[in-house]
Amino acid sequence: MANCIIAQSGGPTSVINSSVVGLIKANKDFKLYDTVYAGVNGVEGILNKNIINLSNVSDEDLNTFKYTPSSGLGSCRYKLKPLEESTEEYDKLLDILKELNIEAFFYVGGNDSMDTIAKLSKYSKENNLDIKFIGIPKTIDNDLMYTDHTPGFGSAAKFINTTILETYLDSSVYINNGIFILETMGRDTGWLAASACAAKLNGESVVDFIYVPEVAFNKIKFIEDVRERFKRNNKVYIVVSEGIRDSSGRFVSEFDCVSQDNFGHAQLGGVSNYLRQIILDSGISTRVKALELGILQRCAMHCASDIDIEEAYNAGYEALKYAKDGKNGYMVAIKRVYKDSKYTTEFFEIEASKVANNVKYLPTEWVNEEGNNIKEEAISYFNPLLNGNPSLCFEDNLPKYNVFNN
Amino acid sequence: MANCIIAQSGGPTSVINSSVVGLIKANKDFKLYDTVYAGVNGVEGILNKNIINLSNVSDEDLNTFKYTPSSGLGSCRYKLKPLEESTEEYDKLLDILKELNIEAFFYVGGNDSMDTIAKLSKYSKENNLDIKFIGIPKTIDNDLMYTDHTPGFGSAAKFINTTILETYLDSSVYINNGIFILETMGRDTGWLAASACAAKLNGESVVDFIYVPEVAFNKIKFIEDVRERFKRNNKVYIVVSEGIRDSSGRFVSEFDCVSQDNFGHAQLGGVSNYLRQIILDSGISTRVKALELGILQRCAMHCASDIDIEEAYNAGYEALKYAKDGKNGYMVAIKRVYKDSKYTTEFFEIEASKVANNVKYLPTEWVNEEGNNIKEEAISYFNPLLNGNPSLCFEDNLPKYNVFNN
Repeated sequence: MANCIIAQSGGPTSVINSSVVGLIKANKDFKLYDTVYAGVNGVEGILNKNIINLSNVSDEDLNTFKYTPSSGLGSCRYKLKPLEESTEEYDKLLDILKELNIEAFFYVGGNDSMDTIAKLSKYSKENNLDIKFIGIPKTIDNDLMYTDHTPGFGSAAKFINTTILETYLDSSVYINNGIFILETMGRDTGWLAASACAAKLNGESVVDFIYVPEVAFNKIKFIEDVRERFKRNNKVYIVVSEGIRDSSGRFVSEFDCVSQDNFGHAQLGGVSNYLRQIILDSGISTRVKALELGILQRCAMHCASDIDIEEAYNAGYEALKYAKDGKNGYMVAIKRVYKDSKYTTEFFEIEASKVANNVKYLPTEWVNEEGNNIKEEAISYFNPLLNGNPSLCFEDNLPKYNVFNN
Repeated sequence: MANCIIAQSGGPTSVINSSVVGLIKANKDFKLYDTVYAGVNGVEGILNKNIINLSNVSDEDLNTFKYTPSSGLGSCRYKLKPLEESTEEYDKLLDILKELNIEAFFYVGGNDSMDTIAKLSKYSKENNLDIKFIGIPKTIDNDLMYTDHTPGFGSAAKFINTTILETYLDSSVYINNGIFILETMGRDTGWLAASACAAKLNGESVVDFIYVPEVAFNKIKFIEDVRERFKRNNKVYIVVSEGIRDSSGRFVSEFDCVSQDNFGHAQLGGVSNYLRQIILDSGISTRVKALELGILQRCAMHCASDIDIEEAYNAGYEALKYAKDGKNGYMVAIKRVYKDSKYTTEFFEIEASKVANNVKYLPTEWVNEEGNNIKEEAISYFNPLLNGNPSLCFEDNLPKYNVFNN
């Protein structure tokens, strides 16, 4: 009796559960493992033996789960100690897996999770254990190397773009309008903020300025730009990534930095309010609104991209095929392919160790010369990722969701 | 050649344009007026002669407009001076209407707009002018008297409830979760916050506490409640209306009150951050997130309630029939009817002067004894208003919207 286990790690996305459902479906098709277990709360939960059986979940519940946002198996931000420091946790984890006759371990996550996959794969090989460790990509930040994009990103970008169109219209209704600042996530990279270039009304971009962490933020130039645009249009719409930095590399919102997470990442927030204050202080306008989308952008399944959901599902499906083919220590990566000019994707394997602790930045060629917007040519990258609306289940006039993390 | 004019006023909603389209459709059906004009930016725009012709807009564009959020004819927060003080503006406005052979004036708005309708109707009658003034209700706040509910409210409530389900799941994924505070609009009334009682997962309410302006906020009790619930569940989800007050009637967020609008209403914001600070100070948890939905809740057409859109459309349609029947100084009001237990609505007329400057509060019988939640029985009021998803037009994978306020 051979089994497998899947777990989720890091920040949730709208489509991370779709990958779990894809994997379960693949196992039904290939009849590879007797039982698909789930570790609740990632490796942290597995170490606590918080493990459930997903093999008996009904097709109906699986379909609901496919369209449920958040890490429905629970999550963690647990970093295994470096192998050189201590192997205790690794031994404990592998003992638990062996007890359950686990032959494949799937981890849905970002670069930190790929680090976990790489370490576990390495250690288990060194100990001649026949357990395959396979990574399934997930992050709204779109910052994983090698893969064209990451599941979760398209849905977040779609919500951001939809919200931009709607808040742009809402904030343009008076004779005297003001300045609107939308803050997106993106600690190190500007993918989410940059996607805002896709938001158009009657073929025209609605966003005046986009600021990303890849380009040093210049406060003086910012004030000049906003002043000039407000004078011309009587309104300005600004999109800013939470992680923008000045030329010395310091986070613009650094004084709002309240804590660090377990990986030592600064927890940011509040850059839009900071920009709002700069504008107010400069006397450009007294009508300045700042909106921080916060976690909405990563969980708004009701506004997800259907292509993103299907790609997440297929990445999970593919991961099981990797296990079937004996691959170990790899992540499923996405390749973009155009067939007769139509966007489609293929999958390929990449060593998790290469993805781990690496960051894929927004190409600076996509940023305009002034450093305050994204070029038109970038839209063709973002646009196909926003395609299609999800077939949500409804109950009592609201989306029906279910999770397995209680 | 007789014509009519329609304009919008006050804060935008997702469905305010649907009412305009309903009125245009009724005029096509009844062939009542030669031209349907629109005043851009409400009475303020009409006084500036910013008037456009809507009669030649194509059916396709009208359909897009029906599903476009925000005040697509522009808006204003312009208050006409009391008649006793000066009739100058009234005379100017009526002269402009006479010039265009206007026989009916339709105003889509809330209680301040109904005040405008009442005043204009009174003054034009006194001056023996044959112009009918008719109000079409609109406000996400749901605070208009006599009508069962207001167009715009259902869609806002649906977005709030959907967002609650999604953020609840997102903020429940770790072993150690925190406290989540969602702030809704609602300066004087708690309808929007109260609607959160409809948010359920597997038949269970997800919101632990709901605070509304109709019940005095008690800080000591709040801390006790949150402490006890966090101890029991390791997480707490709180919904709060921006307008909650203490027992002396002072806004809890008063120190965050930055300005007043033209009607002397305090512009509020930040109560969720204030509650967050209270919780942090009390040492209950260090993980406390506050999310202010801001204008998202009133413009999220992508998550609107289809029944709300249709009711808004029908209210506009009905308004034209009022003009046809010679009614003057009335607002279209909604009556809830159950036919074979199925929710439906009928319309009836109510004097705009009765609605003007009045406020319909949330029934305090719906608030539980502890003053910190909404009773189950209220759900049957809210739930039918959330029904159905809109048939949005899409272009380049994003909703297609168009407006007439430029």
